[in-house]
Amino acid sequence: MSEKKIVIIGGVAGGATAAARLRRLDERAHIVILERSGYVSYANCGLPYYVGGTITDRSKLTLQTPESFRARFNIDVHVHQEAVSIDRAQQVVHVRNLEDKSTYDEPYDELILSPGARAVVPPLPGVDSERLFTLRTVEDTFAIHDFIERAQAKRATVVGAGFIGLEMTENLCERGIDVTLVQRDPQAMLPIDADMAPFVHNELRRNGVELHLNATVTGFVEKDDALVTQLADGQKFAADLVILAIGVTPDSTLAKDAGLELGLRGSIRVDEHLRTSDSHIFAVGDAIEVRHVVTGRPALIALAGPANKQGRIAADNICGRKTTFTGSQGSSVLKLFDLTITSTGLNARQAAQVGIDFDAVVLSPASHATYYPGAGSMTLKVLFERSGERRGRIIGAQIVGTDGADKRIDVLATAIRAQMGASDLTELDLAYAPPYSSAKDPVNMAGYLIENILDGLVKQVSWGEATNLPEDAVLVDVRTPGEVARGGIEGSLRIPLDELRDRTGELPRDKTLYVHCQSGLRSYVACRMLSQLGFSCANVAGGYGFYAASAL
Amino acid sequence: MSEKKIVIIGGVAGGATAAARLRRLDERAHIVILERSGYVSYANCGLPYYVGGTITDRSKLTLQTPESFRARFNIDVHVHQEAVSIDRAQQVVHVRNLEDKSTYDEPYDELILSPGARAVVPPLPGVDSERLFTLRTVEDTFAIHDFIERAQAKRATVVGAGFIGLEMTENLCERGIDVTLVQRDPQAMLPIDADMAPFVHNELRRNGVELHLNATVTGFVEKDDALVTQLADGQKFAADLVILAIGVTPDSTLAKDAGLELGLRGSIRVDEHLRTSDSHIFAVGDAIEVRHVVTGRPALIALAGPANKQGRIAADNICGRKTTFTGSQGSSVLKLFDLTITSTGLNARQAAQVGIDFDAVVLSPASHATYYPGAGSMTLKVLFERSGERRGRIIGAQIVGTDGADKRIDVLATAIRAQMGASDLTELDLAYAPPYSSAKDPVNMAGYLIENILDGLVKQVSWGEATNLPEDAVLVDVRTPGEVARGGIEGSLRIPLDELRDRTGELPRDKTLYVHCQSGLRSYVACRMLSQLGFSCANVAGGYGFYAASAL
Ligand SMILES: Cc1cc2nc3c(=O)[nH]c(=O)nc-3n(C[C@H](O)[C@H](O)[C@H](O)COP(=O)(O)OP(=O)(O)OC[C@H]3O[C@@H](n4cnc5c(N)ncnc54)[C@H](O)[C@@H]3O)c2cc1C
Ligand SMILES: Cc1cc2nc3c(=O)[nH]c(=O)nc-3n(C[C@H](O)[C@H](O)[C@H](O)COP(=O)(O)OP(=O)(O)OC[C@H]3O[C@@H](n4cnc5c(N)ncnc54)[C@H](O)[C@@H]3O)c2cc1C
Ligand SMILES: CC(C)(COP(=O)(O)OP(=O)(O)OC[C@H]1O[C@@H](n2cnc3c(N)ncnc32)[C@H](O)[C@@H]1OP(=O)(O)O)[C@@H](O)C(=O)NCCC(=O)NCCS
Ligand SMILES: CC(C)(COP(=O)(O)OP(=O)(O)OC[C@H]1O[C@@H](n2cnc3c(N)ncnc32)[C@H](O)[C@@H]1OP(=O)(O)O)[C@@H](O)C(=O)NCCC(=O)NCCS
Repeated sequence: MSEKKIVIIGGVAGGATAAARLRRLDERAHIVILERSGYVSYANCGLPYYVGGTITDRSKLTLQTPESFRARFNIDVHVHQEAVSIDRAQQVVHVRNLEDKSTYDEPYDELILSPGARAVVPPLPGVDSERLFTLRTVEDTFAIHDFIERAQAKRATVVGAGFIGLEMTENLCERGIDVTLVQRDPQAMLPIDADMAPFVHNELRRNGVELHLNATVTGFVEKDDALVTQLADGQKFAADLVILAIGVTPDSTLAKDAGLELGLRGSIRVDEHLRTSDSHIFAVGDAIEVRHVVTGRPALIALAGPANKQGRIAADNICGRKTTFTGSQGSSVLKLFDLTITSTGLNARQAAQVGIDFDAVVLSPASHATYYPGAGSMTLKVLFERSGERRGRIIGAQIVGTDGADKRIDVLATAIRAQMGASDLTELDLAYAPPYSSAKDPVNMAGYLIENILDGLVKQVSWGEATNLPEDAVLVDVRTPGEVARGGIEGSLRIPLDELRDRTGELPRDKTLYVHCQSGLRSYVACRMLSQLGFSCANVAGGYGFYAASAL
Repeated sequence: MSEKKIVIIGGVAGGATAAARLRRLDERAHIVILERSGYVSYANCGLPYYVGGTITDRSKLTLQTPESFRARFNIDVHVHQEAVSIDRAQQVVHVRNLEDKSTYDEPYDELILSPGARAVVPPLPGVDSERLFTLRTVEDTFAIHDFIERAQAKRATVVGAGFIGLEMTENLCERGIDVTLVQRDPQAMLPIDADMAPFVHNELRRNGVELHLNATVTGFVEKDDALVTQLADGQKFAADLVILAIGVTPDSTLAKDAGLELGLRGSIRVDEHLRTSDSHIFAVGDAIEVRHVVTGRPALIALAGPANKQGRIAADNICGRKTTFTGSQGSSVLKLFDLTITSTGLNARQAAQVGIDFDAVVLSPASHATYYPGAGSMTLKVLFERSGERRGRIIGAQIVGTDGADKRIDVLATAIRAQMGASDLTELDLAYAPPYSSAKDPVNMAGYLIENILDGLVKQVSWGEATNLPEDAVLVDVRTPGEVARGGIEGSLRIPLDELRDRTGELPRDKTLYVHCQSGLRSYVACRMLSQLGFSCANVAGGYGFYAASAL
């Protein structure tokens, strides 16, 4: 084997993984990691939990150190070294030593870029306040942590209700800090659909978070030992500190300056071997453009799983192993207080954007057999293609719930990866015992619901349609009087399912019956009965439970 | 739609599901369920937990009653009615009313058999003792429960360490009863391999169960208010009661007497539409022979998931919907005290039986990022084809662990269903955040391990091979001195991984190095280094942790 010199820019998820794999594949290569911050191989995803106090040991935030990389992998790790430009003709990286400000050249045979993504910081007034923080590195984490201790912070404003904003919100609450959470969009957590987001909003409010949706920040003003966040509608929130977490953008300046081909929103374009437009330069992680597994189109997916996988693939290819990265589907999961929020594949907005004709089912299964104690509840939404060649193909799924949500999303992610359709879901042979699942797992059940729609056994309407009731339709509630007493929709005809067969005379034959129950199951049973008895009817997806969650 | 008369024999998992689906598909059909026991739609899988006191409410054991079936589905449910024979020419079932012993005929247009499986009761002396119980129905459960209360039972012997035996063992322990567990085979839980079973044995012993393996029961003798279980080797265990749980067999007498075609071990043979050799008779559930998804061969798989799925498919076909049952893969899961034991697809014995050339990887991942508190541990074994056209295909998996074991088995079950290979596992885009998983999920990691073996990056030996060390091999332990101090294998050369690169001079070049660490990861890294430096070496699968568990 040749003594190749391989330089890696960025020593965390993508970069560190590439380095370790490189060494395993090539014992003789000279491997150098350049890292701008003071740490490599750190647990980005764990950082919020250090702020919250769930992780207290600073050493737990890094999986490897420069020393351990040397001892185990014989890799040269240089921290506080910033790659400032790349001379592709000379195959040299110009580096600035951030400790002594000196500069030097680092030649390479092969170069891997894993610079990650930067927090988006819009040019708003006051955004440079020392009370305003973004979170990306270990240093950022310590800065927030130390500021909170020093200032004995009691109030924080978090701007942005995506992954990092929500994790920071939870962790600030864990420290006893009052949090105001400001989100420009009408919902938190954009990966999930608008009708699923209310569960998130409720969980935030239940935990004392002051949530402001549709709230555009116009700037920040320091005043009386506080930083005041100002909204377009005039509202102002004073706090000891502000966390700005409105998204990330590929950190691709180096690549751009070096004239490498770029893709979506300035990301680095790579081929399936993760090679950039320069055959000696590979790029991985948050900075690159990937192919979306479901749409086949370019996408940006800034997550640790793909970054790790890509690091290994880049290393493979440098060592002559022609492995490929075939794409991401954006599977993600977030813990928010007692809730798990998780999704994979496309959501409704994304599916519409690429012009897929889709529909979705909503169900609220228990995490395991309800006769066995401790079952949690979840709301599961599964999107599928409604027409065309791939009719029935599963294109995305979202779950908000407690126990077992992460399990079902991973099963669905695997099914999506395998291009499965509704009937494949019904056939999945999943492991069942009462403490773990139901004989028909929620994923099987989702398959049944979809099959029934595709087979024309039942028509489905959404609550959007059911609450904007057409003239020729009427709402029918088939729940029991006990359930109705706990809440229901005005103007519904009320006949409990178990009496329906004997009371069809009370139903109008000249109207479409929009039937609902608590979850959608009994109303489906009702629809099957009624449609065979000559009624025109449709099942309201998700039932009153789904409606009530959004209406809270 | 015609007014078909459909008779269903057996009103639980397969039968009750078929009945409900039939009604949804055909509002006008006349549907009759004949059930020998006093209950329909009962939670077989919950029965042991009633004995243990986890479920206390008797009504929770049944999901539907004859009355609710009537109200909701307009179905005639007749309990305490035994189908005694089928006259296929006349399309009539002869029924005995077990309450008044009368007999009558129930004509059918279509017949569904869902009679389930009987507990195997060998003709041993004393097997008819009133202190000896098997568990299948609600009545059996109450009988055990009431006997325990009445006799104030303190000691029980459980014969058979499969699903029901282990669940009963746990539940008897929960009631404070001392349990002796007797198993004829050298291991408990035959669905998992011999090298995985020690985790189960340890968990049993840790919870005070007296476990006897390789123990053949020769008979039972009542003596002094106790039932004495006698073993072939002369051992005797006196107890207040005995639970006999040595397996189940298809309850196919009816089908056999009616001259229907039978399959494996007397099971009912069906086509993919679940039609028996008589076109008006369908059969589902524990009583039928299915196609094994992995081998394509006939198999018996007595589990609730398949039974439920099959019930729906039989109903579909009776109503003209040509859905198919394409097979089972035996995915199962068991809670045993704090342990989850779960498997899918083929185990080593089954793979060998059908002549597949396979190998397996063993890993011990954490259930989630270890820097986030509360991670559990698991041991994961994945079997794959080693040669041939489908080289790399995943054929089975087993996990013993705590948190998150059920999640990974379901992902692997889905992957197996999709005929995925090792590299597909590495590509799975699973949802990651620290409380739920690692950036490389255990399933991805299993894919890496397999790929490395198939690609020839590392040779692997089992502990069986490593402990029967060939002349020309030597054991190398690359763990730290601290780890070695807590236990290790005599005669190993000991060099911590992080010192290995500088100390290769201490290693023999004329021998094969069998390298191990705690889990297999560091020894793999060592093997990569050493093989490139000209050493002949192999990684000991599973590491010392796996060895120690079996040696306990
Ligand atoms: C707070 C937080 C929580 C997260 N939680 C999750 C989660 O739960 N699940 C999940 O899947 N993902 C999560 N992520 C995202 C995940 O961490 C990233 O997707 C992943 O780390 C990307 O890997 P990367 O190698 O591309 O970039 P990074 O891991 O960000 O590493 C890039 C490194 O390159 C360095 N660098 C950049 N430019 C230069 C230069 N010019 N010279 C030298 N060094 C340079 C940077 O300092 C940085 O250390 C989280 C991220 C953050 C910040
Ligand atoms: C204690 C226990 C725990 C279990 N735990 C699990 C688990 O955790 N996970 C899992 O997947 N599976 C489990 N199972 C297995 C699961 O219950 C069965 O696979 C499933 O119930 C099979 O469905 P079936 O319809 O074929 O038979 P069953 O559900 O057994 O129903 C058959 C019914 O038919 C009746 N019957 C039989 N013959 C006649 C006749 N001639 N006339 C009238 N009626 C008749 C019987 O009385 C019985 O009620 C467990 C089983 C038991 C007994
Ligand atoms: C710590 C770090 C350098 C480790 O990289 P790594 O060595 O590739 O990863 P792991 O320690 O998980 O080991 C995986 C390797 O061990 C092998 N392995 C793991 N368990 C094994 C076992 N039981 N037996 C044999 N091999 C095993 C795998 O096959 C893989 O090797 P390969 O890539 O050559 O196939 C890197 O993951 C990192 O820096 N992570 C922190 C940053 C980060 O990911 N942040 C975002 C998430 S918080
Ligand atoms: C109780 C029992 C009769 C229910 O049978 P079932 O009605 O088929 O099953 P479910 O109540 O789960 O309902 C499933 C049906 O509702 C539909 N459904 C479920 N949730 C829905 C929702 N939110 N919206 C619309 N439809 C929904 C499904 O599509 C399915 O209908 P389909 O088969 O026509 O497609 C049967 O499962 C049984 O007897 N179980 C106990 C015995 C047993 O299984 N034992 C072993 C395990 S312990």
